[in-house]
Amino acid sequence: VRADLAVQTELDELVAMAQLMELDDLVDLLQDLPGKNTRELLRAMDDRRRDSLEQMLSYPEESAGGLMNLDYIQVRTDVTLRTVLRYLRLLDDLPDNTNQLMVVDRSGQYQGTLRLRSLLTNDPSIPVREVMDREPPYVIATQAQAEVARLFEDEDLISAPVLNEKGLLIGRVTVEDVVDVIRDESEHSLMGRVGMHEDEDLFAPVLVSGRRRSVWLGINLITAFLAAWVIGLFEAALDKVVALAVLMPVVASMGGIAGSQTLTLMIRALALGNIERCNAARLLWKEIGVGLINGFVWALVVALISVLWFGDYGIGGVIAVAMVVNLLCAALAGVVIPLILRRVGVDPALAGGVVLTTVTDVVGFLAFLGLATLLLI
Amino acid sequence: VRADLAVQTELDELVAMAQLMELDDLVDLLQDLPGKNTRELLRAMDDRRRDSLEQMLSYPEESAGGLMNLDYIQVRTDVTLRTVLRYLRLLDDLPDNTNQLMVVDRSGQYQGTLRLRSLLTNDPSIPVREVMDREPPYVIATQAQAEVARLFEDEDLISAPVLNEKGLLIGRVTVEDVVDVIRDESEHSLMGRVGMHEDEDLFAPVLVSGRRRSVWLGINLITAFLAAWVIGLFEAALDKVVALAVLMPVVASMGGIAGSQTLTLMIRALALGNIERCNAARLLWKEIGVGLINGFVWALVVALISVLWFGDYGIGGVIAVAMVVNLLCAALAGVVIPLILRRVGVDPALAGGVVLTTVTDVVGFLAFLGLATLLLI
Repeated sequence: VRADLAVQTELDELVAMAQLMELDDLVDLLQDLPGKNTRELLRAMDDRRRDSLEQMLSYPEESAGGLMNLDYIQVRTDVTLRTVLRYLRLLDDLPDNTNQLMVVDRSGQYQGTLRLRSLLTNDPSIPVREVMDREPPYVIATQAQAEVARLFEDEDLISAPVLNEKGLLIGRVTVEDVVDVIRDESEHSLMGRVGMHEDEDLFAPVLVSGRRRSVWLGINLITAFLAAWVIGLFEAALDKVVALAVLMPVVASMGGIAGSQTLTLMIRALALGNIERCNAARLLWKEIGVGLINGFVWALVVALISVLWFGDYGIGGVIAVAMVVNLLCAALAGVVIPLILRRVGVDPALAGGVVLTTVTDVVGFLAFLGLATLLLI
Repeated sequence: VRADLAVQTELDELVAMAQLMELDDLVDLLQDLPGKNTRELLRAMDDRRRDSLEQMLSYPEESAGGLMNLDYIQVRTDVTLRTVLRYLRLLDDLPDNTNQLMVVDRSGQYQGTLRLRSLLTNDPSIPVREVMDREPPYVIATQAQAEVARLFEDEDLISAPVLNEKGLLIGRVTVEDVVDVIRDESEHSLMGRVGMHEDEDLFAPVLVSGRRRSVWLGINLITAFLAAWVIGLFEAALDKVVALAVLMPVVASMGGIAGSQTLTLMIRALALGNIERCNAARLLWKEIGVGLINGFVWALVVALISVLWFGDYGIGGVIAVAMVVNLLCAALAGVVIPLILRRVGVDPALAGGVVLTTVTDVVGFLAFLGLATLLLI
C-alpha cells in the first residue's frame, strides 16, 4: 500500500507539474514516461488541453509535429487592424516568440499570417487581408526537425505555422525550439563519434559512466582483434623482417586520418542534405583524386624516411605502394561507408568512424605486409 | 591601366554592394578584405553609417561587438504607448527580429527595453516607463560570442541590447546571428577534429582540398613516426616474440578510444563553460576511476583471448598490465591535455585528438613492449 501511495503521490505531482508546463515540453516528457502514467496524466487534464496534447503526441518525436506548440493567436481576414489591436489589449500577454498572428477566414480555414511589424506600421483602419502575408514560410507536421531547423536558418524565422498534410493549421514552431534542435544535432554528432550519448553527464557516477562507455570499447576491441588477426597472417614475414612491425602502424594511421577527413565532410553534407544521387558520383571522383594526390605525396616522404632509417630500398618501395593503396581505399571508404550506413538505417555520425578505421587498419596492414611477403621474402 | 580599371570596377561594385548590406554582415566582409579596400569603402559611405561601422569594427570578430547591428528603434521613457504606436506607424517597416524597442531617458541614457507584447497588451494611455522592462537580459560588447549564444539559449531571447563597458547602448544582437554562431561552433568542433576548416567546400577543386588536408596528414605523420620510433626501441623483443607485433595495435587502439571519450566530454564541457578550477580535480578522479574499471574489465578479456590465441600465459599477463596502464594514462591525458592546450591558447577541439592519440600510442607500445622485454625475454 505504501508503495502504491508513493506512486500515487508522484503521479499527483506529475499532474500538477503538467498543468504548468508548456504543451511542447510536456510532449517531450510524456514520450519518455511509461504508457500507464501517460494515460493517467491525460485523464487528469481538461478536454481542450487533452485534445491538443493527443494530436501533438500522434507525431514522431523527431518531426516538426513533436516540436510544435499550440500557443498562437488567431485573427480573421475581414477585421481591421484596429480591431486586432483592441483584441490584443484584452489579453494579459502574448505567447512567447509571437512575431506574427495566424490569419484564418470566416470558416476558420488557414490563410496566412499577420506579422506584428505590419500590424504596427500600417493604418489601423486597413483590414487584415490587405496587409497579411499570404505565403509565409511554413512547415508540415511530418517534416524532419533537422529540415525545420534549416528553414528557420535560411529564412531567419522567429516562428512558423505548422500545417498538417491537408493544409490545416495545427500549431506553431518557434526559434526557441529550433535552437535546441541545432544544439542537440551538434552534440549528437560530437558524442556519437566516440559511442557516447549526448546526455552523458560529466559528473555521472563512475560505475554508470564506465558501463556506458565500455560498450564502445567492446565494439572497438572486436575491430582491433580483426586487425590483429590480419597481422597474424603475416607472422612469417614479421619474423624475418622486424622493420615491418615498426613501420606498419604508420601506414594504418595515415589511412585512418585521410579517411576521417572524407568521412567528416560526408557526414556533415548528409546532415545538411547536400548529397543527392546525382552528385555522389562526382564527389567520389573528387575524393579519389584527393586520396591519390595525398597518397603519392606522403608515400614519397614515408618511403624516404624508411629508406634512411633501415637502409633498405625494398622496404621503401613496399611502404610507398601500400600508402597509395591505403589512402585510395580510405577516400573510397570515407564516401561509401556513410552512404551505406544511411541506407541500412544506421546513423553515420555514430558508427562511421569505427567502420572506417577498421577498413583502413585492415587494408593498411594487408597491403603493407602482403606486398612485403610477396616482394621481400 | 587596364588592371587598375579592373580593380576600380571591383571596388565600385563593392561600394554599391556595401550600400545594400546590413551593417553586421558588412563588418564580417570587411574583416576579410585587405586594409586598402576597407579604407576606400569607408570613404564612400555617408557619415552616420561610417561612424557606426567604425565603432563595430573596433570590436574583435569573435565578440558580441562583432555580432551586433545598429538597426533598433529607440523610444523615450516619458511618452505614452499611444505615442509609440503612432511613431511606429510613421515607419515603413520595423527592423528584422524586433521584439522589443530600446528605451532611453530624456538625455538619451539607456534605461531598458519596451517589449512589443507589453506595447500591444497595455492601455495606450500608460507611459512607457510604467510597462517597460528595466532589467532585460543584455550583453556587453566585449563578451565572447559563445557566451552570448548561451545567454540567448538559456533565456530564450529574440534580441538583446548591447552595452559598452560604460553601460551605454551601442547596438543590438538578434537570435538570427546567434543561430549562426551555434552552427559555426558545432562545425568548428566537428571539422577541426580532423584538421579541416569549417568552410571546407564539398566540391572544392581536388588540388585545393588536397593541399589543405595534407597539412593535417603531415602533422599526423610526425606522431606516427614517433610511435614507430618507440616500437623500434624494442626490435630485439619483436624479433624473438612475433606475437608482440600482432597484439601491440590492440593495446594502443583501446587506449585511443577510451581517451577520446574522456577528451570529447572535456571539450564539450569547456565549450559550455562547465569546467572550473574547483571541479577539475573531481573530474580527474572520476575519469581515473572509469579508466581503472574499464582497464581491468578489458584487460581480462584481452588477456584471455591472447592466451587462447598464442597459448602463452606470459603474453596474457603482460598485455593485461599494459592495457590497465594505457587506459589509466588515457583518462589522465583526456582530462589534462585540453586544459593544457587551453592554457597555452590552442583550441582543444582542434589539436586535442592528435595529441591524445600520440600519448596513447606511445604509452601503449612502451608499456606492452617494455614489459615484454623485462619479463618475457
